[in-house]
Amino acid sequence: MTAASFMDLALKAAETAQNAGEVPIGCVIVLNNAVIASAGNRTLTDRDPTAHAEILAIRQAAASLGSERLVDCDLYVTLEPCTMCAGAISFARIRRLYFGAADPKGGAVESGVRFFAQPTCHHVPEVYSALGETRSAQLLRSFFQARR
Amino acid sequence: MTAASFMDLALKAAETAQNAGEVPIGCVIVLNNAVIASAGNRTLTDRDPTAHAEILAIRQAAASLGSERLVDCDLYVTLEPCTMCAGAISFARIRRLYFGAADPKGGAVESGVRFFAQPTCHHVPEVYSALGETRSAQLLRSFFQARR
Repeated sequence: MTAASFMDLALKAAETAQNAGEVPIGCVIVLNNAVIASAGNRTLTDRDPTAHAEILAIRQAAASLGSERLVDCDLYVTLEPCTMCAGAISFARIRRLYFGAADPKGGAVESGVRFFAQPTCHHVPEVYSALGETRSAQLLRSFFQARR
Repeated sequence: MTAASFMDLALKAAETAQNAGEVPIGCVIVLNNAVIASAGNRTLTDRDPTAHAEILAIRQAAASLGSERLVDCDLYVTLEPCTMCAGAISFARIRRLYFGAADPKGGAVESGVRFFAQPTCHHVPEVYSALGETRSAQLLRSFFQARR
């Protein structure tokens, strides 16, 4: 499978989140060309402020591998990770991070604190942005428009 | 109870973590002068890179209150929160953050990305630092010395 098709799976997870009334953000984690974890945002459903798609997928992948380090794993997420999730991605030792739409208001990779460029960040993934950007941004836009 | 006695409980949670072979960091969350959550680091035990004391305590408190917003809750942690945990503290709407030792290498409050001072941080707690600092720093120092 290609990077684009893994991002399609993350977009599907975002749509599932949206159908559950959550902010439509989705994430998959891939090891050796196979998806080992997949999650959408679940902060409302789980009543858990940490239940962002990336955190849930990282916890799922770590449980599946039986290790707190996700060596050689790549993470695909539809929106630029926030500060909390950028920290978790670094701790989990994610190899490559692919994200869709940029998030100037809450992102922490190209926006905000740009965590991976800071000296307090001790593991930096390779970052690939703007993959599936249009669909990801469209999902979020229509979600927030519908709520107004 | 006083702030110092809540920090004592966080230090106890740090000691429990240490006895389990974890980095000795502990956290309690307090609402209306009562502890509603308490946790030490559990990244190795749980094989979960997100299982920092603060994340675990926030998830516990949210489950206990049945809400993803910990309104009027105060968080006590023995070490300056990292980038991931500072993000989670903001999302959880923690009212006051009390922390013990500063962490210039990995902290994100007074050190590093200083997340609460950034425009991408949308809820800022009141911050009180250096509470129980000496004991907290001592715990961490002896832990890392013993591992060398």
